[in-house]
Amino acid sequence: MNAIEKWDVFEVEAKGFSDKNPFVDYYIKGVFSSKSESVEVDGFYDSNGTYRVRFMPSFAEKYQYRIFGSFSEETLSGSFEATAPTEGNHGPVRVANQFHLAYEDGKPYNSVGTTCYAWTHQPEKRQLETLEELKKGYFNKIRFCVFPKHYLFNLRDPVTFPYEGVPTDASKLNEENFFSAMFATDNSWDFTRFNPVHFQNIEKRIKDLQVLGIQADIIVMHPYDRWGFSRMDQASDDLYWKYVIARFAAYRNVWWSLANEYDLMGSKTLFDWERYASILVEKDPYKRLRSIHNCTQFYDYTRPWVTHCSMQRTDLHKTAEFTGDWRTRFGKPVILDEIAYEGNINQCWGNISGQELTRRFWEASVRGGYAGHGETYYNPENVLWWSHGGKLHGSSPERIKFLHSILEETPGYGLKQLQIQGFGGTFSWDDVVGVPEDFKCAGTYFLIYFGIFRPSFRDYFFDESTEYEIEVIDTWDMTILSLGKKNGRIHIDLPGKEYMAIRIRKAV
Amino acid sequence: MNAIEKWDVFEVEAKGFSDKNPFVDYYIKGVFSSKSESVEVDGFYDSNGTYRVRFMPSFAEKYQYRIFGSFSEETLSGSFEATAPTEGNHGPVRVANQFHLAYEDGKPYNSVGTTCYAWTHQPEKRQLETLEELKKGYFNKIRFCVFPKHYLFNLRDPVTFPYEGVPTDASKLNEENFFSAMFATDNSWDFTRFNPVHFQNIEKRIKDLQVLGIQADIIVMHPYDRWGFSRMDQASDDLYWKYVIARFAAYRNVWWSLANEYDLMGSKTLFDWERYASILVEKDPYKRLRSIHNCTQFYDYTRPWVTHCSMQRTDLHKTAEFTGDWRTRFGKPVILDEIAYEGNINQCWGNISGQELTRRFWEASVRGGYAGHGETYYNPENVLWWSHGGKLHGSSPERIKFLHSILEETPGYGLKQLQIQGFGGTFSWDDVVGVPEDFKCAGTYFLIYFGIFRPSFRDYFFDESTEYEIEVIDTWDMTILSLGKKNGRIHIDLPGKEYMAIRIRKAV
Repeated sequence: MNAIEKWDVFEVEAKGFSDKNPFVDYYIKGVFSSKSESVEVDGFYDSNGTYRVRFMPSFAEKYQYRIFGSFSEETLSGSFEATAPTEGNHGPVRVANQFHLAYEDGKPYNSVGTTCYAWTHQPEKRQLETLEELKKGYFNKIRFCVFPKHYLFNLRDPVTFPYEGVPTDASKLNEENFFSAMFATDNSWDFTRFNPVHFQNIEKRIKDLQVLGIQADIIVMHPYDRWGFSRMDQASDDLYWKYVIARFAAYRNVWWSLANEYDLMGSKTLFDWERYASILVEKDPYKRLRSIHNCTQFYDYTRPWVTHCSMQRTDLHKTAEFTGDWRTRFGKPVILDEIAYEGNINQCWGNISGQELTRRFWEASVRGGYAGHGETYYNPENVLWWSHGGKLHGSSPERIKFLHSILEETPGYGLKQLQIQGFGGTFSWDDVVGVPEDFKCAGTYFLIYFGIFRPSFRDYFFDESTEYEIEVIDTWDMTILSLGKKNGRIHIDLPGKEYMAIRIRKAV
Repeated sequence: MNAIEKWDVFEVEAKGFSDKNPFVDYYIKGVFSSKSESVEVDGFYDSNGTYRVRFMPSFAEKYQYRIFGSFSEETLSGSFEATAPTEGNHGPVRVANQFHLAYEDGKPYNSVGTTCYAWTHQPEKRQLETLEELKKGYFNKIRFCVFPKHYLFNLRDPVTFPYEGVPTDASKLNEENFFSAMFATDNSWDFTRFNPVHFQNIEKRIKDLQVLGIQADIIVMHPYDRWGFSRMDQASDDLYWKYVIARFAAYRNVWWSLANEYDLMGSKTLFDWERYASILVEKDPYKRLRSIHNCTQFYDYTRPWVTHCSMQRTDLHKTAEFTGDWRTRFGKPVILDEIAYEGNINQCWGNISGQELTRRFWEASVRGGYAGHGETYYNPENVLWWSHGGKLHGSSPERIKFLHSILEETPGYGLKQLQIQGFGGTFSWDDVVGVPEDFKCAGTYFLIYFGIFRPSFRDYFFDESTEYEIEVIDTWDMTILSLGKKNGRIHIDLPGKEYMAIRIRKAV
C-alpha cells in the first residue's frame, strides 16, 4: 500500500478528456476518507490529458479515496496509509491562541517573514540563488505573487505567463512610461486556458520552501499589472481562484493572501474580495491561514474568514509601535508584512537602514506581533530582493535571525506588551515590556526593549527575595551578557547605546 | 540728559519706606511718555528701602516720566532720550506672520532653543560655565525657571530662594525618596516677603543672555517642588506674578512661559492659568511672547493671550512630524520646546542620540515649526545641561547651529510644508518639502529633507527651461555640495545615507 507522512501531499494522477477546453468543460473531484475525516476536494486539469487531485491527510490513519467527475468515463479509487510525521514535519501553521501561531503539532511558530514578490517568475538561475539565500535560515515565511509583476524596477517579462496568449510588448518600457503601460491594450489572453508550466514552477518552489521550513504566503491577486490580470471579469476571476486553490491548497506550508495592496485595485470592490474569500472558505478544506494586505486602508480584519492581520504600516514614522493598538482593534495575530524595506532606492518605502528595520522587528515582536522583511538596494541590473530574490546585501537578516532565536525561547505561544499602570511598580511608564501571552506563564519572563532610547542604567524591584536571571541583550551586535541571578532592587548598567534589550527570567 | 537705546531698559531708582512689609504695604508706579506712546508700569520693592521702576522705550524719541505711589511722600519725574538702536539690538521678538517670528526691526528670528531649567540657581562658577557654552552660538533661546527645581538629578538646594524663610531639610534626600519629599511639611516661608537677591541674579543672567543675542524664555511656575512654591494660595500666586512682571518685563529678550508641564500642577486649575494670563496681559505693557508648556495635554493654544505654541511632544515615537497638524490645529507659531533630549539617563525623555535630536529639529523646521534642545548625559556629579547648565557633551549643538545657518537663508519669515497632491507633479508624495511661508516667495526655494530615509537618487521636473541651483546638504556632516544650475529633468544623486537634504533655489 502507498504510504505518505501525515501533512504531506497525496496526489492522484488521472488521464482524461483533452478535447474542447478541459479547464472549463470537464471537472474532477476526489473524496478522501479515514476513521477521523472525510474530505472532498477539487482536482484540476494540468496538461496533455492529465488531471490531478491533491490531498493532505490530517491524521496518521488509513485512507480510502474515490476520484470522480466528468473528466473521464471512469471512476478511480484506492487507498493509502498516512504515517506519523518524521522530524521537521510539524504540520501546517494555525492560530494557536488569539494572537499567536503554532504548527499543528504544537510547536510555536514565531513569524519572521520576507518578501520576494516575483521570485518564481525569474530565470531558473536566480530562483536557485534565492533558495540558496533562504537556506541560511533568516526567515520562516516568504510572500510572493502568482501573477507576474509590473512596477518600477520590474519591467522585464516573467519567464512564464499564467495564461495562454500574447503579452503586451515590453521592449519599449522604461521607468518613465511604466505607469501608462498599466493600461496597455495590445495584450491577447485566453483567460479560460491556464498555462500549467507557470503553476508547476510555483508548486516546485512551494515544495522547496517546505523543505527549508519556510511558509509560502501566496499573494493571489495584486495591482502591479500591464497584462490585465488585475482587471479580469468575475467569471475569469472565479475560475482563477478555483484553479489556484485546487493546485496549491494541499501543500501544508501554504498561506493565502487574497491580495497585495488590495485597495489599489480599482476594478475590484469589497463584494469581490468577500466573494473570493467565500470561494476560499468553500474550496480549501484545510482552512489555511487567510488574510489580505493593504496599501493605505486596512481591510476589516475582524471579518470571520480572516485568520490574521497582514498589514502594511499606514504611517511613515510610527509603525510597529502601533502593534498593541492593532491587536486590540482586530483581536487577531498582527503580522506587519510591510514596514518599509532595508535599502537605498529613491522611494521612502524602500530605503531605511538595517538598524531601523531591525528595530521595527523588535518593536513588533515585544508588543505581541510579528514583522516582515524586504530589501531594496538599488543596482543597475535591477535585481532587488524584494521582488526578484537573488542575493541579500543588507545587514538586517542576521539580526532578524538573532531575534527569532530569542523569540523561540519565549514561554508559551508568544508575547504581549505588559500594561504598565501608575507609578511605583516594578516597571517604569516608559518600559516596553514583552511578557508571555499565556496567563499561566505570568511573572516568569520579561523582555524589555529600548529601541532608539539609550539608557545607561535601569532599576527594577519585584520583591526582596525572589531571584531573577538577568541578561543584557545587544540586539544589533547580537550578544547576550548574563549578569547572573539578582533579587531585591535590581540595578542594571547598560551601555547607553541604541537597540538594547533586557531579558529577566524568574530563576528556577 | 540721560540717553539709552530704544529697546534698552530705563530704570528709575527711588528711596522709600522700609517699615511694615514694603512688598505688600506700599506700591510704586511709573508713567513714561513720548510723542508716540504713553505707558504705565508697576515698579517693585527691591531691598534696603530701595524701589525700582523699569521701562523699555519702543521709539527713538524723547521720553518724560513721572514716578508715584505710596512708597514715598514724594513724586519723582524726569526725562531721557531713547536713541536709535546700535548693531545687535534688533528689539524684542514678535510674531511676524501667522506662523513665524521676527525681531521688532524686521530681522527674521529662526528659533533654535535650549533648556537649562535651574541654571540660575547653581553656584556662580557653573553659571559662568553655562554662559561660556552659550557664547558658542548654538542657540538663540533658553528656557529656565524662576523657582528652584526639585526632581531626579536635582536634589541640591539652590544658591538662593525666592522668599524669606527656611527650606525643608535636603540632607537626607535621594533618588528613592524624592517623590515623597514633594509633600515635605518642614518648610517655613513668608510668601509676602521676596528675597530680592534671587531675582537680582536672574536679571543679571537675562542681561548676559541679551548680550549673547539669546531670548530668555522664563518659566514662571512649575511642578518640580519640595518647598510649596507650586501650591501657594491665590493671593500669594498673584503677588508673585506681579512681582516677576514688574522686575523682568522691561528686558527685551524676555518671553513668558506661564508654566512647565502645567498639567502636572494638581493644585492649579484652568481658572488659575487664565487668571495668571490676565495678570500678564494687564501688567506687561510690551506684550512679550506668551505661552504655556504641557506634559501630556496640550493647553488650548487658540486662547487669545497665547502668542505661540510651546509644546512637549505627546508621543514617544512620532514627534516633530506632527508640526504641520499642530500648525493647522492652533494657527500659531509651533515651537516644540521638548521633544526628548540628547543623553543617556535612564528615562526615555532624556536618552536619544544626537542624530535623532538633530533629525527632530530638521523635521520641525522643514514643516514650518521650530524645535528645542536639551542634554541629559548622566554623570556622578549630577551636572546635566538640561537643568544645571555647565558644559555641553553632545553632538547635536553643532548640527543645530548648522541648521540655523540654513534657516537664516530662507526667503521671508520661515518655512511651511508644501502640500503635495496627486501623482506626476514636481515632487513625489514622500518628499517633505519646506517652502517659504510667504506667498510672494513661492516657487523660488525648496528645502527637501529625507530624515531616516536613504534615497540614492531623486528626480525632479519643474519645466524644460527654468534654471535651478541644486545643493545636496548633509545635515549630519554639515556639508553643502553644490551641483550647479540645472533645468529640465533634474536627476540628483545622493549618498544613500540618513539625514540628507536637498536645497533647490530658482537661479537668478
